[in-house]
Amino acid sequence: MNRRENIRVTVWNEFRHEKASPEIARIYPEGMHATIAQALNAQPDLRAGTATLDEPEHGLTQAVLDRTDVLFWWGHMAHPEVSDAVVDRVQQRVLNGMGLVVLHSAHFSKIFRRLMGTNCSLKWRELGELERVWVTLPSHPIAEGLGEYFEIPHSEMYGEYFDIPQPDELVFVSWFQGGEVFRGGSCFYRGRGRIFYFDPGHESFPIYHQPEVQRVLVNAARWAAPVPMEGFRDLAQAPHHPEPMSPITIQP
Amino acid sequence: MNRRENIRVTVWNEFRHEKASPEIARIYPEGMHATIAQALNAQPDLRAGTATLDEPEHGLTQAVLDRTDVLFWWGHMAHPEVSDAVVDRVQQRVLNGMGLVVLHSAHFSKIFRRLMGTNCSLKWRELGELERVWVTLPSHPIAEGLGEYFEIPHSEMYGEYFDIPQPDELVFVSWFQGGEVFRGGSCFYRGRGRIFYFDPGHESFPIYHQPEVQRVLVNAARWAAPVPMEGFRDLAQAPHHPEPMSPITIQP
Amino acid sequence: MNRRENIRVTVWNEFRHEKASPEIARIYPEGMHATIAQALNAQPDLRAGTATLDEPEHGLTQAVLDRTDVLFWWGHMAHPEVSDAVVDRVQQRVLNGMGLVVLHSAHFSKIFRRLMGTNCSLKWRELGELERVWVTLPSHPIAEGLGEYFEIPHSEMYGEYFDIPQPDELVFVSWFQGGEVFRGGSCFYRGRGRIFYFDPGHESFPIYHQPEVQRVLVNAARWAAPVPMEGFRDLAQAPHHPEPMSPITIQP
Amino acid sequence: MNRRENIRVTVWNEFRHEKASPEIARIYPEGMHATIAQALNAQPDLRAGTATLDEPEHGLTQAVLDRTDVLFWWGHMAHPEVSDAVVDRVQQRVLNGMGLVVLHSAHFSKIFRRLMGTNCSLKWRELGELERVWVTLPSHPIAEGLGEYFEIPHSEMYGEYFDIPQPDELVFVSWFQGGEVFRGGSCFYRGRGRIFYFDPGHESFPIYHQPEVQRVLVNAARWAAPVPMEGFRDLAQAPHHPEPMSPITIQP
Repeated sequence: MNRRENIRVTVWNEFRHEKASPEIARIYPEGMHATIAQALNAQPDLRAGTATLDEPEHGLTQAVLDRTDVLFWWGHMAHPEVSDAVVDRVQQRVLNGMGLVVLHSAHFSKIFRRLMGTNCSLKWRELGELERVWVTLPSHPIAEGLGEYFEIPHSEMYGEYFDIPQPDELVFVSWFQGGEVFRGGSCFYRGRGRIFYFDPGHESFPIYHQPEVQRVLVNAARWAAPVPMEGFRDLAQAPHHPEPMSPITIQP
Repeated sequence: MNRRENIRVTVWNEFRHEKASPEIARIYPEGMHATIAQALNAQPDLRAGTATLDEPEHGLTQAVLDRTDVLFWWGHMAHPEVSDAVVDRVQQRVLNGMGLVVLHSAHFSKIFRRLMGTNCSLKWRELGELERVWVTLPSHPIAEGLGEYFEIPHSEMYGEYFDIPQPDELVFVSWFQGGEVFRGGSCFYRGRGRIFYFDPGHESFPIYHQPEVQRVLVNAARWAAPVPMEGFRDLAQAPHHPEPMSPITIQP
Repeated sequence: MNRRENIRVTVWNEFRHEKASPEIARIYPEGMHATIAQALNAQPDLRAGTATLDEPEHGLTQAVLDRTDVLFWWGHMAHPEVSDAVVDRVQQRVLNGMGLVVLHSAHFSKIFRRLMGTNCSLKWRELGELERVWVTLPSHPIAEGLGEYFEIPHSEMYGEYFDIPQPDELVFVSWFQGGEVFRGGSCFYRGRGRIFYFDPGHESFPIYHQPEVQRVLVNAARWAAPVPMEGFRDLAQAPHHPEPMSPITIQP
Repeated sequence: MNRRENIRVTVWNEFRHEKASPEIARIYPEGMHATIAQALNAQPDLRAGTATLDEPEHGLTQAVLDRTDVLFWWGHMAHPEVSDAVVDRVQQRVLNGMGLVVLHSAHFSKIFRRLMGTNCSLKWRELGELERVWVTLPSHPIAEGLGEYFEIPHSEMYGEYFDIPQPDELVFVSWFQGGEVFRGGSCFYRGRGRIFYFDPGHESFPIYHQPEVQRVLVNAARWAAPVPMEGFRDLAQAPHHPEPMSPITIQP
């Protein structure tokens, strides 16, 4: 019996680039979310569905979130169109246990900025240069099956300073040929949930078709799956406990 | 010459309890902010002023923030009255370098929740029981001058689970006689700023008059003072760097 | 197919108290290692064997370590009798991937002090007082299945300052009725291995028979299991890479 | 009055390369330790002396260590010649409060490996390629006075995986033109002491003459200076506290 069987993933994509650009549609005919979901569904312990911006409530109703163990998020050109009500809902669901995997340009999504508390800004350049992803924490489950590094032949440069809190676990640091480094594989514990940010994945390069990248996404889904507990409170509440658990003596 | 001379502190207080309750006014006749500012001003390297909720813009205009190195924040009953525009302004000022010291019930302030990204909820009980504050990081500047622990004879209990990100540095963990523990001395690096949360300080006990507590506040002001740098960007911006810093070769 | 099937655990115990004291032998007739191994073996994905101090090479030959995924370690009165050669061997095995779960008085074992680099000293008192173990990181796999806290009715007090590096993940903080706190559930990433220190487990109390404690041990075995990778170097080596991976231009 | 006046630094160097190689002697005629001490002594709050391997007890008697606030350490070819007794002494002095700044090839020194508990291995290449040092924690005192990055025109490549514990604060990540990244500015809290590892500084390049590098060394000396406390125990001791601090009730 496998305690991590049947991890339910929802892959969210704003799904605009693929409709607006024939070049991008050639790489991701059904959208990046479809490619990612397919890679996850090839694993026996993962079951991935999808949701997109233009669906009602962006496809992220409370019912969908309640049956999602891990949410993947890809956004870029339409961050401001995501409604604050949905952002509130996703934030509380993460804090109460759902995993979140934030991809590439979603560094600037409302939900990631909300959960980090920082601007999540960075430097960028889009020449298709080489990115070499180095493993800096080989004992971490998200590095499973990898070697010391892997390469993205054509990538968008994302560079430091990346305005995020210090990650709880820094799994990958990327090297870009043009001269920058980037903490592109960063883990965060927030409330009862876990968050992984992963920088590769520009829409105009076939990055989500690459086996090493798919391996990371699979590992991330498993790592971010919720930890079942017994009787933990809703973390939006600050309960009053008027009775001491152990006897006290008030000093005069 | 002292590179940390003249740290400019602004102590912010909602200043409502002291006006509403004669008991509290007896402890803090001019408000908790005045007591805290006085303790800081007793140090030659600190210069503290104050600001309160009912002043225009809560006393926190851009001009005030621009000349503040470290902001102290005490709030409790009036968190919702703090305007979102001021919260935005304080957040950006912290991310661009100002220190922030968050006191006691300000765990639930808009600004702390904004910067943490979590609910910052906790358990609580107000019986005036003993709190013993243990040093868990004796190499940290905020522990300077203390021993292995100090005691608050009458305190409000704040207990785990405290819904904050794992602190970058956990300086104090409190023991409460009634049975709880609390990560009540927690440091966070965010953007170019530094944040310290400190749990002692309930309005109905004379906690800010206690020498050990004043020592922690002085240490925190020094620790959170900004780090001057040369030419760092505004962290709200994500600049485009179209030219590589070092030569690149695009692969076919 | 379960990627975490058949985690091979070796439970090491110095196994002296149980032979020297009839009271302790009544609690652990076959030794604490046997009780712990039995609790682990009740899980379908764990297979636990044992090893003890008085076996040749303390039962920890290279062959045994090579087929161990996670090593549990309980020691107390005989720390100095553990040979340095075995400590070297265990250290390298951890750094190259084996998990290590360090129990109670093994805070002062040679192997834990070696891997931490600090003295690992603490305060202690043996009156059998109440210990309440609080969860401070509910998103962590080692907290799986627990509630907000659990209690050890009779425990040895271990108190701060505990001289360990700041844990990468602080899962539990204990409250002791006599007045102390303790970071008793602490995770460390070291090399390719993961280490968990857990404070409950004094030999004269039946702590390892308690369901919540057994749950933590099971969770820890799963969490500390090695992460398989492809082609990672032996971490004792610092390889020379005379050829650059990407073209360089030496400046004049 | 400045609470951080008169920080007493001892710069330790094995001082062999400079005697063995005329090329290196041209760069550092009196040894790298002399150049570093001179840079530190240019600051009014720092007072630096030196010690070298071939002095009696390597120049690090208990008396010297007792009057040292921060020890800098440069070693390379003679790590095994450092006596274990001196390593023990330095380790205990760090754990009881002295700062330690570990430079370049001292990643493989006995003292750094001892304090980290890991192998501290890395990849390396000595072609004199460009190193670009990126600031990843701009709120940290060791980044004071710098911009977003600085460059070392000719450097020895040090590359990941660098076998260190996750740093408490990761201040710098280096980019090397040949294709690697390196966590070369890493802070560690250990016991009552603080440790900073800084990778630039190969003996055959004039790196310690560079203003940005000197700025980092000055910042590191200030950051690592001891935190005075009142009545903290010697951390090699694990004291028995037979009396509870607060009343207890033993359960039946």
